[in-house]
Amino acid sequence: MRRRRCTSVRPQYQTDTESESDPDSTEETMRCISCQEDYGARDAGTCKECYEEANETEEELKREIEDLKAKVAFLKFWSPIDPHHHHSSRSHPPCFSDIVLVASEDATGGSAVPVPAHKAVLVSRSPVFRAMLENEMEESLSGTIKIGDVSYDALRAFVNYLYTAEACLDEHMACELLVLAEKYQVKHLKAYCEKFLVSKLNWDNSVMNYAFAHQHNAKHMLDAALSLITDNMDKLTKREEYMELVEKDPRLVVEIYEAYLSKQDNTAAHKDPS
Amino acid sequence: MRRRRCTSVRPQYQTDTESESDPDSTEETMRCISCQEDYGARDAGTCKECYEEANETEEELKREIEDLKAKVAFLKFWSPIDPHHHHSSRSHPPCFSDIVLVASEDATGGSAVPVPAHKAVLVSRSPVFRAMLENEMEESLSGTIKIGDVSYDALRAFVNYLYTAEACLDEHMACELLVLAEKYQVKHLKAYCEKFLVSKLNWDNSVMNYAFAHQHNAKHMLDAALSLITDNMDKLTKREEYMELVEKDPRLVVEIYEAYLSKQDNTAAHKDPS
Repeated sequence: MRRRRCTSVRPQYQTDTESESDPDSTEETMRCISCQEDYGARDAGTCKECYEEANETEEELKREIEDLKAKVAFLKFWSPIDPHHHHSSRSHPPCFSDIVLVASEDATGGSAVPVPAHKAVLVSRSPVFRAMLENEMEESLSGTIKIGDVSYDALRAFVNYLYTAEACLDEHMACELLVLAEKYQVKHLKAYCEKFLVSKLNWDNSVMNYAFAHQHNAKHMLDAALSLITDNMDKLTKREEYMELVEKDPRLVVEIYEAYLSKQDNTAAHKDPS
Repeated sequence: MRRRRCTSVRPQYQTDTESESDPDSTEETMRCISCQEDYGARDAGTCKECYEEANETEEELKREIEDLKAKVAFLKFWSPIDPHHHHSSRSHPPCFSDIVLVASEDATGGSAVPVPAHKAVLVSRSPVFRAMLENEMEESLSGTIKIGDVSYDALRAFVNYLYTAEACLDEHMACELLVLAEKYQVKHLKAYCEKFLVSKLNWDNSVMNYAFAHQHNAKHMLDAALSLITDNMDKLTKREEYMELVEKDPRLVVEIYEAYLSKQDNTAAHKDPS
């Protein structure tokens, strides 16, 4: 985590030569406790006490992180479907599951493998599941929740996340999970997917992701994609996705231009504060 | 968290007066970025770059802490008995509980109020409950687990901890929970109680806590109590608890004397390394 940046401190001989033409040339250089380089008043950082205090603070923060990690490990639920877990529902039937989720990707979907879960977990993770199950709706009585428009793998990953707060993401999986997280109001998972997708954002997928973020109301992703697009307006209109978007949902294209305009105004305002 | 210690840096005029009788009196003092005090070579800490790097590290650690706290908040289960939770089992029946725990403090104990829980939670938090429930023993079939030698309040706090990793401790509660944590092998709770009890350790409760730690195999607490006792051997034999312990469990008293002896040897070895 800690990057070595001290190597960029100018070497001693330079400091000396500079010191010649330097008002405070009498200055005594001091040795940095951390990087062991000499430094002059110009590069002065902290006194010894503040250095030691900062070290203490860092140690305290690291201890807090260890405690929190232990807490997470304790609270993590052993998922009834986690393949890595030695108590996976397959190898070890009794997981006391009282409900199953079924991915119905297509209308038929009868063949889909059910994913075992616990009402108590679903209820504590998702207000949508809570309303569904506590109000004894059909799903609660039948013991089966149908989840539409989702692959079996995504559903497994979704349920697994509800138990462990962990998911192994690629861009496709992140999109599928974000849709589920939005639908069932699992904020923590939505933020997790959004963060991942923003990190994968580039010019080639920006328009597609902009539309996706809009559709599933992913604010951070939307802003990130929008600023990337408005930085490359000259190239925008040539893109296929752009033309498709004009066809499919021109309002979104309008919003791009509006964002571009206000950005120009801001830049102008900066350049000429009068 | 960050204690202000820079105020202890000697005031400027002192530094000056000292500088008089100082070999490197020509030295230019520098200003600490953090505490804004001037300092000389003697108190040199870090250069600017290392100071900035340390700040970045601190920010990164704080971000990590925020992420972990959010993860804990997500993973925390809404306890079926947490009185603060708006979905408390009392105010809102359907918690999908599939088992109850009963505190049987005395032989009769029939009157005790059952504490609702979920097999899936008990199994994921305690290897003892796992063996008990997965092997379909009596408790699993009857749907009732009798917990001996524990108060109703302690049992509630115990179950609540299994769901939330939180407990409100006083010394008595910490002892009751430590006993349960040891009995059902809930390591995280045991460490939590031990840490609390060590923080409350003092000369008056040291002998009692030493015996308690011994009985329930709380290593950290044992060591802390033992070193406190061996630091006050002169006062030990006058204590009532000491005489009681000699009666009840002389082996423990022997261990105190053995610890005292080896401590003396170490001190001697330090004083005279020959």
